Amino acid sequence: MSGAVSPSQAGLEEGLVDEVVASFAEAPSERLREVMGSVVRHLHAIVRETRLTEQEWNTAIEFLTQTGHITDDRRQEFIMLSDVLGVSMQTVAVSNQLVGNATEATVFGPFFHEGSPEVPNGGDIAAGAHGQPCWVEGRVTDTDGKPLPGARLEVWENDEDGFYDVQYTDGRVAGRAHVFADDEGYYRFWALTPTRYPLPTDGPVGRLLEAVGRSPWRAAHLHFMVTHEGYRRLVTHIFVQGDDLSDVVFAVRESLVLPFEQQAAGTSAPDGRDLGDATWSRVRFDVVLAPEK
Amino acid sequence: MSGAVSPSQAGLEEGLVDEVVASFAEAPSERLREVMGSVVRHLHAIVRETRLTEQEWNTAIEFLTQTGHITDDRRQEFIMLSDVLGVSMQTVAVSNQLVGNATEATVFGPFFHEGSPEVPNGGDIAAGAHGQPCWVEGRVTDTDGKPLPGARLEVWENDEDGFYDVQYTDGRVAGRAHVFADDEGYYRFWALTPTRYPLPTDGPVGRLLEAVGRSPWRAAHLHFMVTHEGYRRLVTHIFVQGDDLSDVVFAVRESLVLPFEQQAAGTSAPDGRDLGDATWSRVRFDVVLAPEK
Ligand SMILES: [Fe+2]
Ligand SMILES: [Fe+2]
Repeated sequence: MSGAVSPSQAGLEEGLVDEVVASFAEAPSERLREVMGSVVRHLHAIVRETRLTEQEWNTAIEFLTQTGHITDDRRQEFIMLSDVLGVSMQTVAVSNQLVGNATEATVFGPFFHEGSPEVPNGGDIAAGAHGQPCWVEGRVTDTDGKPLPGARLEVWENDEDGFYDVQYTDGRVAGRAHVFADDEGYYRFWALTPTRYPLPTDGPVGRLLEAVGRSPWRAAHLHFMVTHEGYRRLVTHIFVQGDDLSDVVFAVRESLVLPFEQQAAGTSAPDGRDLGDATWSRVRFDVVLAPEK
Repeated sequence: MSGAVSPSQAGLEEGLVDEVVASFAEAPSERLREVMGSVVRHLHAIVRETRLTEQEWNTAIEFLTQTGHITDDRRQEFIMLSDVLGVSMQTVAVSNQLVGNATEATVFGPFFHEGSPEVPNGGDIAAGAHGQPCWVEGRVTDTDGKPLPGARLEVWENDEDGFYDVQYTDGRVAGRAHVFADDEGYYRFWALTPTRYPLPTDGPVGRLLEAVGRSPWRAAHLHFMVTHEGYRRLVTHIFVQGDDLSDVVFAVRESLVLPFEQQAAGTSAPDGRDLGDATWSRVRFDVVLAPEK
């Protein structure tokens, strides 16, 4: 801590913080001034508290550079970094304060991709991705229980090998689609029973996790982004009850852990689909949207 | 400030900080555990204090991504970012506490490049870069005044158009060299009188400065990196007395502002060099190295 330095040294360090904060005083946007003031004060506090060395600073610059270089249209290492530092989850917590019985939000993650195909209610979002079939159904309502017909449910998930389609090398779209709630707010689709996967460990974030002895594995989950005009956008996951819920990005919320009921081979499917001799699972996830602020 | 939220919301946010800090508890390196704990606590404090929105978080992720993508072997936008936030100067302040009369350090900057040519004492480091010739001389000693023969002085500077050679498109080396102090610790070389230049504004850091109404200009300076076995590496600048000393990276130190004496055309040069009808300047910069810790 900076308490260990002489008063003149502490004065010099504090004076520098003030000088930098003051340099933002003329920002036309009050909000940007506020955010940059906070960023500056806390970044300087990290340097002062830890008595950061120039070598460590170099290491940080190199780490950020590598994080930037591995990031492209299909891989977002900065989001992964924010995720594993819990910064994403903190932003979610701050931005989505609990509103009555509204469904809790969780992290967005780095694997979302714009432009998913539409699937009709009852359709299959897996589109050939490997894994155990899972029937997902529920209803979208507001906090008073009023159904929200036409709500859009964007869903995405990994296959049983742990990969999202954006990680496939052949560019195909699978395990990613959107459906719209029907006239009574109900939705239903086939997906895959969620399975655990590690974040990609071949980049700087993986090397950081390795260096600090942290597991790169995420709790098994299915991503949802649910939107309806006049309501707060909900980005969330559902997790598998009874599964290992340890999670590298701190995203698990008790209320999002649901029973995925395992079905024996031969059990007839809700929509009469012929699943041959495959086992499958089913889950119900009712979504409650908070009103827009 | 987070004081405005409910106790249960504050508890949720604080619990998340603790959970993330705890995830680093098994890091084999105590130092890494300490630094990551500080990083996590302060990043989360920024999010909580500013009540950062998901849209603002997205903007930050996009900003970092662009900063990474524009960074290459010749342009280091992350160092520029650290510089304009005063983080570089704070690291310098923390890492180079004053030791007696030792020369003060200042920022490294993004324009250093390994592998500069050696120039003999009295040689010309400008190597064709445009600007007013400047005779630079001085002596390298320890804090007791003992000369340090063989001290290596790495120097680099911009031309009068504001560019370092790493910004040239033709790959030529100019305004960048190293010299060695002679048997009595003296050094001398021709360079260019330092001139003000703006940081490159065509990237994310330039756009940030623009958005907050800050000038991208640096105070005119000549970079030095002075090394000698058994002494602390000194990275510093000298600045031009009487010039505009406002500086986008907060690097100016009173003790580093020196008189550059302007010489009329025709004044004979210290080494007899024929400068034709050009004016020139001269400066004396004595370097005092602190002992290695
Ligand atoms: Fe995921
Ligand atoms: Fe410079």
